[in-house]
This record gives sequence, structure tokens and C-alpha cells, in this order.
Amino acid sequence: MPTDHKTLTPDLLARMDAYWRAANYLAVGQIYLGENPLLRRPLALADVKPMLLGHWGTTPGQNFIYVHLNRVIKKYDLNMIYVSGPGHGGPAVVGNTYLEGTYSEVYPDISRDVEGLQKLFRQFSFPGGIPSHASPECPGSIHEGGELGYSLSHSFGAAFDNPDLIVACIVGDGEAETGPLATAWHSNKFLDPMTDGAVLPILHLNGYKIANPTLLARITREELDQLLRGYGWTPLFVEGSDPALMHEAMATALDDSVEQICKIQQEARASGHAVRPRWPMIVLDSPKGWTGPKEVDGLQIEGTFRAHQVPIKDPATHPGHLALLDDWLRSYRAEELFDEQGRLIPELAELAPIGTRRMGANPHANGGQLLRDLHLPDFREYAFKVPEPGVPGIGDTIVLGMFLRDVMKWNEGQRNFRVFGPDETLSNGLGALFEFTPRQWDAATVEGDEFLEPTGRVMEMLSEHQCEGWLEGYLLTGRHGLFNCYEAFIHIVDSMFNQHAKWLKVTSTIPWRRNIASLNYLLASHVWRQDHNGFTHQDPGFIDHVVNKKAEITRVYLPPDSNCLLSVMDHCLRSRHYVNVVVAGKHPAPQWLTMDAAVKHCIKGIGIWEWASNEGDEAPDVVMACCGDVPTLETLAAVSILREHLPTLKIRVVNVVDLMRLQPQSEHPHGLIDADFDALFTKDKPVIFAFHGYPWLVHRLSYRRCNHGNIHVRGYKEEGTITTPFDMTVLNDLDRFHLAMDVVDRLPQTGDRGLALKRKLQGKLMEHKKHIRLHGQDMPEIRNWRWEAAPA
Amino acid sequence: MPTDHKTLTPDLLARMDAYWRAANYLAVGQIYLGENPLLRRPLALADVKPMLLGHWGTTPGQNFIYVHLNRVIKKYDLNMIYVSGPGHGGPAVVGNTYLEGTYSEVYPDISRDVEGLQKLFRQFSFPGGIPSHASPECPGSIHEGGELGYSLSHSFGAAFDNPDLIVACIVGDGEAETGPLATAWHSNKFLDPMTDGAVLPILHLNGYKIANPTLLARITREELDQLLRGYGWTPLFVEGSDPALMHEAMATALDDSVEQICKIQQEARASGHAVRPRWPMIVLDSPKGWTGPKEVDGLQIEGTFRAHQVPIKDPATHPGHLALLDDWLRSYRAEELFDEQGRLIPELAELAPIGTRRMGANPHANGGQLLRDLHLPDFREYAFKVPEPGVPGIGDTIVLGMFLRDVMKWNEGQRNFRVFGPDETLSNGLGALFEFTPRQWDAATVEGDEFLEPTGRVMEMLSEHQCEGWLEGYLLTGRHGLFNCYEAFIHIVDSMFNQHAKWLKVTSTIPWRRNIASLNYLLASHVWRQDHNGFTHQDPGFIDHVVNKKAEITRVYLPPDSNCLLSVMDHCLRSRHYVNVVVAGKHPAPQWLTMDAAVKHCIKGIGIWEWASNEGDEAPDVVMACCGDVPTLETLAAVSILREHLPTLKIRVVNVVDLMRLQPQSEHPHGLIDADFDALFTKDKPVIFAFHGYPWLVHRLSYRRCNHGNIHVRGYKEEGTITTPFDMTVLNDLDRFHLAMDVVDRLPQTGDRGLALKRKLQGKLMEHKKHIRLHGQDMPEIRNWRWEAAPA
Repeated sequence: MPTDHKTLTPDLLARMDAYWRAANYLAVGQIYLGENPLLRRPLALADVKPMLLGHWGTTPGQNFIYVHLNRVIKKYDLNMIYVSGPGHGGPAVVGNTYLEGTYSEVYPDISRDVEGLQKLFRQFSFPGGIPSHASPECPGSIHEGGELGYSLSHSFGAAFDNPDLIVACIVGDGEAETGPLATAWHSNKFLDPMTDGAVLPILHLNGYKIANPTLLARITREELDQLLRGYGWTPLFVEGSDPALMHEAMATALDDSVEQICKIQQEARASGHAVRPRWPMIVLDSPKGWTGPKEVDGLQIEGTFRAHQVPIKDPATHPGHLALLDDWLRSYRAEELFDEQGRLIPELAELAPIGTRRMGANPHANGGQLLRDLHLPDFREYAFKVPEPGVPGIGDTIVLGMFLRDVMKWNEGQRNFRVFGPDETLSNGLGALFEFTPRQWDAATVEGDEFLEPTGRVMEMLSEHQCEGWLEGYLLTGRHGLFNCYEAFIHIVDSMFNQHAKWLKVTSTIPWRRNIASLNYLLASHVWRQDHNGFTHQDPGFIDHVVNKKAEITRVYLPPDSNCLLSVMDHCLRSRHYVNVVVAGKHPAPQWLTMDAAVKHCIKGIGIWEWASNEGDEAPDVVMACCGDVPTLETLAAVSILREHLPTLKIRVVNVVDLMRLQPQSEHPHGLIDADFDALFTKDKPVIFAFHGYPWLVHRLSYRRCNHGNIHVRGYKEEGTITTPFDMTVLNDLDRFHLAMDVVDRLPQTGDRGLALKRKLQGKLMEHKKHIRLHGQDMPEIRNWRWEAAPA
Repeated sequence: MPTDHKTLTPDLLARMDAYWRAANYLAVGQIYLGENPLLRRPLALADVKPMLLGHWGTTPGQNFIYVHLNRVIKKYDLNMIYVSGPGHGGPAVVGNTYLEGTYSEVYPDISRDVEGLQKLFRQFSFPGGIPSHASPECPGSIHEGGELGYSLSHSFGAAFDNPDLIVACIVGDGEAETGPLATAWHSNKFLDPMTDGAVLPILHLNGYKIANPTLLARITREELDQLLRGYGWTPLFVEGSDPALMHEAMATALDDSVEQICKIQQEARASGHAVRPRWPMIVLDSPKGWTGPKEVDGLQIEGTFRAHQVPIKDPATHPGHLALLDDWLRSYRAEELFDEQGRLIPELAELAPIGTRRMGANPHANGGQLLRDLHLPDFREYAFKVPEPGVPGIGDTIVLGMFLRDVMKWNEGQRNFRVFGPDETLSNGLGALFEFTPRQWDAATVEGDEFLEPTGRVMEMLSEHQCEGWLEGYLLTGRHGLFNCYEAFIHIVDSMFNQHAKWLKVTSTIPWRRNIASLNYLLASHVWRQDHNGFTHQDPGFIDHVVNKKAEITRVYLPPDSNCLLSVMDHCLRSRHYVNVVVAGKHPAPQWLTMDAAVKHCIKGIGIWEWASNEGDEAPDVVMACCGDVPTLETLAAVSILREHLPTLKIRVVNVVDLMRLQPQSEHPHGLIDADFDALFTKDKPVIFAFHGYPWLVHRLSYRRCNHGNIHVRGYKEEGTITTPFDMTVLNDLDRFHLAMDVVDRLPQTGDRGLALKRKLQGKLMEHKKHIRLHGQDMPEIRNWRWEAAPA
């Protein structure tokens, strides 16, 4: 770089440095000061917060980045948001959104004066206040941090279909060690320079985690360069610790980056031809805790892991510490930066962009503001014809696929819907999507490839983390989507779901945050149909995990057939600010309800299937409840057996689509009131409940119900192998024979006929086991079983 | 490479190719043939299995690798195991262990003759048979696949402290897209050439996943080379599809790799000086479904995603398919490979290593064979002195740390114990470990670094996936370990835990598999003490997740204080083939039991704390149950309040250490019989249960108990923020005031005194909220609370 050309004039450099000092001052103030926010009187111990909590380490670096991004936003009139990957960048994003004015706009109480400063400082890491992350309370944030690893995935999700947006993604070098982040660098093979925006990663290489050096800081610079180029990026290194040199270097690197991004986009958009670009990124190698205390009690702080949290830990008990803190605070010369009222002086304030160009005020970071309803075709038109219950289906998700294909088509204009899945979209039965749109794929293609285009809208990478992270970023910036996944492997993102559910809970209580579209999971390829895969692929426990989160946020649906699945999915795509979990089958299976009946059933979420029951006007002898497609099938087959052999038995069939109906209304908004629950399940009759998941979940949801003591649940109990679908139910005692025997066991009044039936069914089970061992297939009576209307 | 020197002689090449053909033949046979295993009569439709399930795609490549590894094992007398990363390499590992003889040794029924071949074929992907993975049933396997992403972590875990072992790790290019795998490449910064073995990754670049191309196959070769070098490896590329050329290239690359590994180890061991090596690895770029059908029904199969599973899908309904299958099977010329009896001919059989050098028979892959008990110091000697209940502690995990330090020390000779944690070992209170051993760290160090050495035995990388995967690999090869983690973020490995628990369940039923050491989790930094971090760090749900797995495998402990934690951990370190979850606090907290009392209490796992109860010989009025350190503290504080204000109330305090005691004995081996449960919890008295986790878990475990209807549980209900530890309990109604009020609510006989107390406690809660808002700290009466013996 020739030294005679400078990106920054001396005046601009000086002002940017002053702005940076202001942000750093605010950060130290947040961590330490309860009173005396501008140090207009000598610092006293009483000014210092009683509990010192917070994270300094990453903050000055992020402040540095923020002021530099402000400059390029203004210079190039950029539409940019800021994603703070390091876990604890709270003091930086809070301070900067305060300096730019956004913070006071959304929290007028935290005004731009001395009083507001004091409140800003006090609330930080204070009981009932704000945490040390880029939390939902912070304007401009779509990514909290705390749990690490998802910043790049979120950033790409935000950039999809936002061609004018640049997402500046600060990647922590600690975070970069996580698996999800390590693969997220590859997202650049899924970004189209014509129709998507750009992500500008800034690897914040400050060298240390909580207590350890970071790997990327301790490999050779050559290796790091190779690694990033191998990931497909063009890295620009900004390295050092001298602020003046670093300002110039960072400004130059940012100008380069922005100009490269614009050039890539302009060329692609002008030519209509996409060659996968090698997008620019920046590596900012600066000291951890930059500008903080060099040394405390003889130990080096700046530039080490010791700068991670609170560098000067306890002024109350260490006499010298208060003076150290005083020196540190005063090193930023706040008196030059803030005016008499405590407001940032105009020469500095003008460095920030204005209006929605401010990263704290960019509407993409409060996605509900930009959210447009999906145009939804009438799902009833995709109905599977069910002239009578029990007709063979073609696979429930396959029917759904045609609906989703048209949802994609109807929203092509507004480009705000995508489907995500880890290499499983076809496997999960959603292949119809490819009739309208291919997969997005910006890497190389060869002859014979199918459904791969740079502008595709189905996202497939073999990483559940990426699918989840991309979708979250897409939703958080005001769009809609669906994640289809094998049921067992959705546990891979348990922790990401946790964080998103927590984000939804908190944002639902923040007045200026707008609701976003729901996060929809379609769990096809479920536990009962792993004919290929066996035990490793059998785990229905994601539902258990989900219902631990706030009832206001979580919804779980188990539609028993195609028409119910269509109705449920239409509902989910219209819903807001929930996590919807939908479990459905992809294999051909019997269909039960006409579309009209399905709609009515799904609106109720739970109900008696009168066509399958024979209780007449009297109370039933037994309730056969079912939830999930396979349990519904086995329940109806059991009912069929019972009707044949014990024709006087009065059986009620209850089907559950909306699992949360089982909970008391006091626990979940979808919960039935006790009277309605009792009306369905009776107060005293045996209930044989065939459940898709782990049986105890039904107990957990229903233990407060009057008849709970009579509810006997069958479900998955970790018995599985490579076997037929029917044998899977046998292994777990969920099959028709066991269910029918369960009824006999609980109804002594069935007497000798009951006992005879039980013996017969035990024989059937033996016969089944023998047949399967010999033939590897189910007995013909299982394979060819058909539901038939009861004899009049 | 000069062409005049060949690694393979023409004869050896021809025999290796024949061996490869034999393995490929066995794979196709496993997928297709129910009868006629050596095609000694014309192939008929009746010979073909009725259901065609399995995975061909990765198999020929893995067969190719296996025969080449056999060669170098023999040539260099290597101690090597084989880790099959691609999800579905079952036919390859099964076939190869059969060819080398191991399979028939562990399953004599699957003999080395025509009859055995037929059984081998039939059992594959057949009901009740074996899955299409490298499943536990397969000798030589420590890594099932199925769920993808953990092969490299497992391999490194296996290599730690096994200086003579080389782990050949086949990494699938689909698997390589997962997050865990993407960061696992960095494991090479944690491997010491002096004291650890080596991992030889073989990236199986066959280009396709289920339905998509793989990313690594569709970036430029230059990028791939940079990526792998950036990760710190020296890649050797073996590329092509012509078997003769490929055999020679692979043999050469393997010789190079093995010689490089030996050289690195010899130099390091001779010099005693470790410079981080750039270990070799191989990229095998070969067609997916290599040697399979080129085309079926006009669509290309070999070299595409269509080769992933069963390339010729349905001979029964497609007339030409049977002939295609016949051609394919006969292309391997089985008649040249197997003798009259159906046994591999001697010229080929001798290519395999013998005895335990065979990868299927290597004892490291059946780690229980090598497992040696830990030398454990007497944990009682680490007792925290508890002259009376309620004395202040120093942090329970900090006490534990001293014991673990000495466990490490006592086993330095046999080097079979390691502690793993994601940059949190210090944060979780286990810093004492560093008094004996540092962290293992082979990357660069700088002045001022602490506790980093190439030979360290504490493993820290900021990736829960890596910690879990390394530890699993370490345990599976017969060693011991502990994973310490923040409670909330252990959910990151939910799915890995699932797979390990399933592995343990299955292996416990396989006679030749030996039990291994338990997987021990220490969840410190738990939900109730996230003063720094707030809501994102609060999730006690891992317990819920764990108890969904087989009761035979899972154990959950919540020791209430330091001495109980010591006793529990000693038990866990001695146990076998379990997953033990231990939740403990790291902050100074009151201590309750002397070591003697703790040992007795932990042996029972649950019990009445008589010193805290005042029921005397009569039945209690109320049972105050508690489980977890913070709930125990709040329960005792509530008891203290109740005793002061309602001195005639007869209170029983029950503490639960072993959570599974709550389940019926029919459900869990640790479960109490009903009579014992009733003796503790009564049959009819109110129980106020303060629980560490989500309250409904207690209901789930106890819903069958007689007194369940009277059990009222308080626990975490997703209410949290940045606040004091006591305020966290208030937000979730688990604090002493709520617990005491709960008692009053359930005991109308407390009358006016009870109502007065309730009003007072409501006032206390108001006072608390106000105090905390003003001062950011708890009221002095909370901070200074001390348990005192009840007045006589």
C-alpha cells in the first residue's frame, strides 16, 4: 500500500478515534459505574457498582469495528446491520446504539444526557437489567450471543433475498472453534450475488477465550490465510495495536471490502451470470481488552485472557484498584467527548449515520417491521380424496409438498419464503418443491446435476446447524420458512432451538420489537419408519425438549393423515412468534378424514372420531386415544379387532392433533379446561393411549387430570432395530395386538371372551415374530389390513 | 513421482484388486441376496431379498481403503483401527471383517463357507438383523455412523495416550459438511507425537450425499488443498477411477503417510521436543458407487448421488433389472475368489493381517478388553469439614477439583484418565487440576501463557462437540474421563449423547463386547447461578433429555454439598457402561453433611434429614423434599422460617441425591419400591418438592406413586434474567418464602398463624423486590442467613 495515499484525513481519523474513546468509555462505565457517570467529581468507591459483572475483553475491538462501519455506511450509503458473534459484546452494541441515538429512541428513559447515562450504566448486568450480550433488548440486534457459534449462519439467513443488505458479522475467534461456526464459513456457496445481499465477516482475532488462547490465533498466519481462502473467502488482514495505524488500516480494508462487494454484485447483476465470487472478509487482529489496563497486581491484562471479563476486580478490597480504575476511565478523556448536558458533542455525533441507516435502527434487525403475510393458496384444494376412512394414501408429506411448492410459487414476487433441510428435502417427501424452484447452489455444477441453481430457494447443506441458523436469520429479518428434518437428528439443534425460544419469549415482552413469523419444523422420517436405518435414527424426544420452553411460544402437532397435515401447516405458516413442531409421515399410509372433517378436527385439535367409535348415546367402556400417524393406524386396527371379537364393548376413539390440548389451560393456552378433558376421556374409564413419542410425555401433560390414574400410555421406549414398520410397533408394545390386549386387561367384564381374545392375540404375536424371522416381511394380514365400517 | 518405481508389484496389485472385488461382491450380496450366495446357479428373482435396503454408494471406496490399510498394517506391522465416518459403510466393514476372519470368530454361526455367506447376506438390513452402519454388532467398530459428524473426534479420542496406535479415520465428504466435523480437523493441535498415537484421516471424496453433490467436491482442488493445509494437515491426493492406477496411487500415498507419521513420532520421541507436526492425510477422490452399474433405466448411477442406496431398485417389477443385477454381481468373478466351500482363497486371505493386527480384532476397538480400573485415592480424605450443618463452603466443584487432581496424579502411570471441557475447566471450579497437569496444547505458545503443554491431560477447546467426541473415543477404547460443562450448553451435545447411550444399550447385549467406563458429565455453572449471564445460560433440561434413554444406562445425581459430590463422583468413576449426569454448584454455598453422613446419604440416594426435621416419632404434617444444591438451601431456609413461626408444625425434610430413586423400581433399577417411597413421602401428606430442574420432571418420575396427587413441585420455569441467585429463585417461585407459603396453603390447620405468616412472607417478597431494584443486591437477611439447630 503506497503510504502517500491515506483513506482517512487526519481530522477524520482524530474524530473517529474520539468516537471510539467515547464508546470505550461507555463500556467501562457500564461495567463499573453506578454513580458519577461522567466523573465530574473524583471517583469514589461509592460510585462503583457493588457487584462487578460484565465482559470487557471483546468490547473495545467491537467498538472499533462499529465506528468504522459507521464511516462506510455514510460514505457508501450502505444498508447494513451488525451481528455480534462474540458471546459478550453487550457493552459495545449498547454503547454504540446509545451514541448513535437509537437506544434513547426506543428507551426514552435512557436519555442522551447525564441522567440517561447514569441509567444506561446502572442497568447493565444489574438485577432486572440487561445482560452482557447483544440481547433482544438491544436495538439493532438479531443475534444474542451467549451461546456461541451461530453468528455467520444468522448473518447469511439475514442476507438471503435482501439484495441491498450487507450484514457485518463479527466472528469471535473463540466462537470460531465451535462446530457450527466452523462449517458456516461454507455458506458462501449458497449466496447469490444477483438476488441475495452480502455478508462481510470480520474475524475478531483478539487471541483469547475465557481462560485459553484461541486456536486461530496460535496457528501460523500462513495457515490462517490458507484456511480462510480454502473456505472460499478473500481475507484482508488488519493487525496491530497502535490506534492511529489501526484506524487507517481498518478504514482501507473496509473501503476495499465494500468496493469488492459492490463490484461483485454489480457485475453479477449486470451480466445476469453468476460465477461464485470469492467474497472479501477482514481479519482484525487486535489485543483483547485493547486500551484497558496493561497490568493489574503484576499480571498482564491487556492482550491476555485476563481481560475477558472485569479486569480490575475488586476496588473495595484492593486499595490501589480504585486509582487504576480512575486512570483507566479518565484515559478516554470523556470531558472532551460529552458536552455539559452529557451529550456526545456534535463533531462526533455526526460520524454516525442517520435514521434507519443507523445499525441500531435498521428495520432488518427488527424483522417484524418488514414482515409481510405469505400469499397462501387454499390448502383445501390440495386435499387427498378420502371417500371412506382407511383408503390408502401416497405419503402425507408428499401431499404437503404440492402445497408447499405452490406457497413457494405464490410468493415468488415477494421472495420471502424458503424451505431448509439437511440433504433430506427429497427424502422427506417434499420433492414437489423442485417442480417450481431448485436448490440454491453457487458452487460448481456438472452435467447430470439435478435441481441446483444460484437462485434456488430450497436450502440444503448437510448440517442441521446451518439449516437452523440460516432459517433463524431469515425469520428474524422478517421472512417465512420451514425446516424439514429427520426426527431423530433434529436433536442436533436442541440448543439452538432453546436460544431461539428464549429470544421469542423475551422479544414478545419488548414493546418496540415486532412479532416475527413462527419457526416451523416438519419432522418427517420419524421414529416409526426407519426401515433403512434402525436404532440410531429412532428418537421422538424433540417434542419433550420443546415443551420445556414457555407455553406461550411452543406448539406441537401430530396430524394423523394428509388432510390434517395440510390444515395444520396452513395454520403454522400463518402463525406468528411461535415454534411449531409438526411430526408427519412420508410413507404411504391409510387416510382417515375428508378435508372438511380434517379442518374441523384440526380446529378442535383433539376430538372423538365418532365414525370409529361405537359408544352410541351411552358412556363408553374404554377410550382408545391416539396421537401420531402410526399410533392412529394401530389404534384403529385394534378397534377393528375388538369390534369383531367383543362386539358389545363400547369403544370411544379420541384422536389428538394438537398435543398441548392435553395440558391444563392454566399451563398452556391451548390446554383444554378440565370439563372438556373429562368429557373426552371420561372421569373413570380406562384410557389406552397410543402415542407417537415417549409415553411419559403424555403423563407429564395430563397428570393433573381427574382420570389420569386410568390413562395407560404406549409409545416409544427405546426398543428398535432394522425391521418392518409393524414390527417396530410390536417391539415397543404399541401394535394393534398389544393395544387390544391392554383393553382386555383393563376390562375384567370382558370375561372369558376377553381372555380367549387375549390368548388369540398372544398367538398372533408369536406368529408375527416367526413370520418376520422367516420372511423378513409382515404377515399378509398386517400388510393387507383395511379399516372397514363397522357392521350395522 | 517417477514412473519407474512402483509401490505394488503386478502380482500384489492383482491380488489386492481381487480382494477388493471380493469385498465388493460381499457388499452387493448383503444388499441383494437372500439365497444363492455365490451364484452357483443362475440368479433367480427368488434369490433376491423381498425388501432391498442398504447403502452401496460409500461401500466400494471403503472396501478399497480397507484392503490398502491391510497391506500397510502387514508391511509396517501397524497397530491400527478403522473408523468409518460415512453414515452407511456397514456393508464394507461387515464384509471386510468377514473376509479377514474376525466376523466368524465372534459370530461362529456366520461361518466362512457358503452357508455362512448366506447368513451374512440375509442378516443385513433384514428385520432383527444388522443395520447399514458400522454398528456395534460389527467387530472393529467404535463408531457407528448413522448420525454424521463425529468420526474425527472419536478417532482423536482413541489416539490420545495410545502412542502406538494409528487410527485410520474415513471421513465422508457429506459428513464433512457438519459443524462437528468441520471443527474436528483442528484436533491436530491437541495431539502430542510423543505420548499420543496418530490419526490418519482419509477424506472419502466421492462427491455426493443422499441427493446432492458435496461441497468439498465442488470447490476447486486448490481451495480444498488450502482448506486442509489451513487446518494444519498435509494432504495427499489420490484421484481417479481406473482401479489399476488407483491401487498404485493409493499404495504410494499410504506408504508416504505411514512413513511420515513414523518419522514425526520418532523424531519427537528421540528429541523429547515437540514442534506441532503437519500430519499427513489422504484425499481419496473416487466415484460414488464405484464398480457398480454405470446406468439404470437411462440414468447414470456410478459417480452420482443415485448410487447412494440401492442402485437397482426393484428387479421384481422391472424385467431388465434382474439381468443387470446378475451382470453386476458376476462382474466381480466370485468364482475366482472363493473356493469350493465358499471360503476366500488362500492367496487372497493371506493379504489380511493376522490375529489382533486385523482391524476387526484390534482390542482398542473393544475397549472394555483393555480397561483398567482407575487408581482412586480415598475421596473421604478430601472431605470438607462440616462441624455443624450450614457452615459456609468454598464451592462444591472446587472441593471436587482437588480430588480430581489426585485422580489424575494417581493414574499418571497408566495414563488412562482425562478431563474435558469447553474452555470452562477453571470457570467450573476445577482449577486444582492444573496443580498437577496442564491443558494439552500443541499449537503455539507465548510468554505469559498458563497451563499449556503438549503433554497436558486436560482437554479444552471451545466446542462441546469436540469435548464429547474426544471423550467418547477415549472411553470406547478403554479409558476413563469426565466432561465438565455449563449446564445450559450441554444441550449442544444432546444428539451425541443419544447415540452414545444407544451404543451402550446395544453393546451391553453383545456377548463379546466388554463393558467400558461410564460417560461422566459434571454440569457445573448451573441454571441457578448465572449471575453474569442471565437467561441464555439457564436451562436444566439435559436431565429430562437423558432420562428418555434406557434406564439401564442412565444415572442422574444432584449432590447437595461438597461431601456428597465427592462421594457421588467416586461412585461414578468406578461405574461401568453408564451415562452419569452430576449437577453441582461451583459457588461458595452452605454445607450440610459430614463425610460420614454424606457417604451414608449417597449410598441410599434419598433420605430423611432427621437433623433438619422435627417430626419426632409421629407422622409429619408436611414433607419438604429437595433435590439440588440451591433447592436444598431454600428448603432449609423455609424450614427455618416455618419452625420459628409455626413451631408446632411437624416437618420432614427429604433430600434426593439420586434422582432415579423417584421412579418405580419397575422402571429404573435405582427406583424405590413403593413401600419405601411411601415411607419417605407418606401416603397422604402434602409434599412440597423443591427441584433443581423443570418441575414436571418430578411428576413424570413419580406419577405412579400413591401420594403423587399431593406432591407440589417448584423448579425452573423459564423465568430468568441477570439477577442475584436468590432473586432467580424468587422469579421461579422456588425461594424460601414461596416454599413456606406453599406449606401454609396446603395446611389449613395452620389457621390464623399460618395466614399471618403468609402475609408476612408476601411482605418479605415485596421488600426483597424493592431492595434489589434499589441496591442490586439481596437484603442482608438473605445474604447473612445461617441455618441454626432448632431450639431444644
